Amino acid sequence: MSIIKSNGYSVTVGNHSLKALNAFLKKKHFSSHFVICDENTLQHCLPLLITNCPILSDAEIIEMESGEQSKDLAVSAHIWQTLLEHKADSNSVIINLGGGVVSDLGGFCAAVYKRGISFINVPTSLLAMADASVGGKTAIDFGGIKNSIGLFAQPAAVFVYPTFLNSLPEKHYKNGMAEVFKIALISDKKFWDELKRGYLNFVSVEQIEKSIVLKNNSVLKDPFDKGLRKSLNFGHTIGHALEAVLLGTKTELLHGEAVVIGMLVESHIALQKKLITQKQGLEIFYVLHRFFQPKKINEKHSEKILKLIRNDKKTSANKPRFALVSGIGKCKVDVEVTETQIKKAVEFFNKSVKFNV
Amino acid sequence: MSIIKSNGYSVTVGNHSLKALNAFLKKKHFSSHFVICDENTLQHCLPLLITNCPILSDAEIIEMESGEQSKDLAVSAHIWQTLLEHKADSNSVIINLGGGVVSDLGGFCAAVYKRGISFINVPTSLLAMADASVGGKTAIDFGGIKNSIGLFAQPAAVFVYPTFLNSLPEKHYKNGMAEVFKIALISDKKFWDELKRGYLNFVSVEQIEKSIVLKNNSVLKDPFDKGLRKSLNFGHTIGHALEAVLLGTKTELLHGEAVVIGMLVESHIALQKKLITQKQGLEIFYVLHRFFQPKKINEKHSEKILKLIRNDKKTSANKPRFALVSGIGKCKVDVEVTETQIKKAVEFFNKSVKFNV
Repeated sequence: MSIIKSNGYSVTVGNHSLKALNAFLKKKHFSSHFVICDENTLQHCLPLLITNCPILSDAEIIEMESGEQSKDLAVSAHIWQTLLEHKADSNSVIINLGGGVVSDLGGFCAAVYKRGISFINVPTSLLAMADASVGGKTAIDFGGIKNSIGLFAQPAAVFVYPTFLNSLPEKHYKNGMAEVFKIALISDKKFWDELKRGYLNFVSVEQIEKSIVLKNNSVLKDPFDKGLRKSLNFGHTIGHALEAVLLGTKTELLHGEAVVIGMLVESHIALQKKLITQKQGLEIFYVLHRFFQPKKINEKHSEKILKLIRNDKKTSANKPRFALVSGIGKCKVDVEVTETQIKKAVEFFNKSVKFNV
Repeated sequence: MSIIKSNGYSVTVGNHSLKALNAFLKKKHFSSHFVICDENTLQHCLPLLITNCPILSDAEIIEMESGEQSKDLAVSAHIWQTLLEHKADSNSVIINLGGGVVSDLGGFCAAVYKRGISFINVPTSLLAMADASVGGKTAIDFGGIKNSIGLFAQPAAVFVYPTFLNSLPEKHYKNGMAEVFKIALISDKKFWDELKRGYLNFVSVEQIEKSIVLKNNSVLKDPFDKGLRKSLNFGHTIGHALEAVLLGTKTELLHGEAVVIGMLVESHIALQKKLITQKQGLEIFYVLHRFFQPKKINEKHSEKILKLIRNDKKTSANKPRFALVSGIGKCKVDVEVTETQIKKAVEFFNKSVKFNV
């Protein structure tokens, strides 16, 4: 079991982490415990959680529907209402048992309930373990913009229990691996080289840990995302815009799938701007295509994507600025990008893809 | 013009403060300016603001209805929608031009929009100038509980322009004076003695300043309201509960009116607990009755008040704890109070009041 120190809290990784959670809760003497979960974690993870963490056997369970569409104001209001009905006070704690949707939403709800109560993240998906578990970002989607309402709020602690991955469907593995590849590509050539020789359907506890450590390094340098941490946004300007365009449509696209498309499009922009060589561009192209088989961006969505980028959180005074890969294991932030460059990259990406949405 | 240093920001007080705001905005180069106001400040304060602060002549004006009922999730959603429509980005600023409702709501909306944008408070009521302008509390009402959703967020700056008080109706003077008397009663005997010899309808710029300085002293010792600052809650446990009970009913009760009733009821509790002498109790009683002529608490509301106190933010593990006056200019926090003591104090208060609601 290993412990990673983040911004005022610890991330405990390993198969004894739920017992560590039990000890943590005992020590903290919270006045009441709430567990937020979705229908999947309720079925597959909650029994394991309670077996290993008996102090939670009388916790109040708040169930929400799985999926990005739950990350909204109406579900937040439902959670607040439940907290009030069960007299949650300033010394209560919320345990977010789920993927990024649960921790984003549950963290947001906790951080503004009675001016902030404690919350603990117990990520159950690879994506949440490797990426969302550190960073202190909480948010919901609003007005068609992903994560447009939220704040920085640190969890009291994070417990990563890899056994939860046993119940994870394959496409959710891919979803998490996208962020693992991203953090390697922007910050650690050696790790990227290791990953590109591996198998997509296998991730080791050490690789999860490595991803958390790398992300944590960025986060600690820049807790409020003011600059140094912007490199983590590689693949996300396009990725988030694509997700937002598809929000509420019938096309289901996981965050990791969007980020893979984002990384491919943005790598082409990096190539246009000569931040990477042709050879590096090809390597990124082949590795990501081989591992993830991304799908084409529907033509009618391209225009909407451009419009949303103008309205992105990361856009300052209407000038789109990207974090772009600038070599294997390197990243350059705040690169101004023109709409023409974006369009060209999207077109290239679409031509290179064999499978249609 | 004087400048009070608070928690990372300054409060500028005096009749040149709007010019100081103009200079501040020029220096900061925000990407866009938004002014939140209600129908009253739109009419009486916005023209003065723009005349003295020409940089705001092209600001986007967001109007909301005056009154506590606007401090809710629906109005917040309207503000966020407007910010998105006008492409507010992470470098935009919101100027809250109004009383505590505007700054509580506007501060909350700013603090969670795109994980937090800057906001500036320009208080227009005496209550907001003397009390709400410092403290870093932002919130909306939810589930019938006042301020149940919100967070600590510091404004970028506060500008107090006393000329705005010229358009303030008399009952709003009283409303503000309630907090001025409170801060004196719990922290400064000399200031209390000065106030009790004064006239209710007159407040000097120096007295506004004095209130801000006293409140600021508490706030700086305890930015997140963990203990030392609890003394500011004197009069507010009962006061907030009463406000919450009346929320959505036809009976209109201003915050200051509720706090005066709260101070009188809680002073009686302090007397029961022998924290103040009979003589001190009588002095508080006479001074507050003479200045404020409080109204009776409707019998049917008393039971609801007790229920709400159990659910108060300041209640830990269901044991009501009060901040109680413990001498003129002194306060004791975390005093456990029984429901019997509360009931007795409410009964005494009601018997002592001549005017019915």
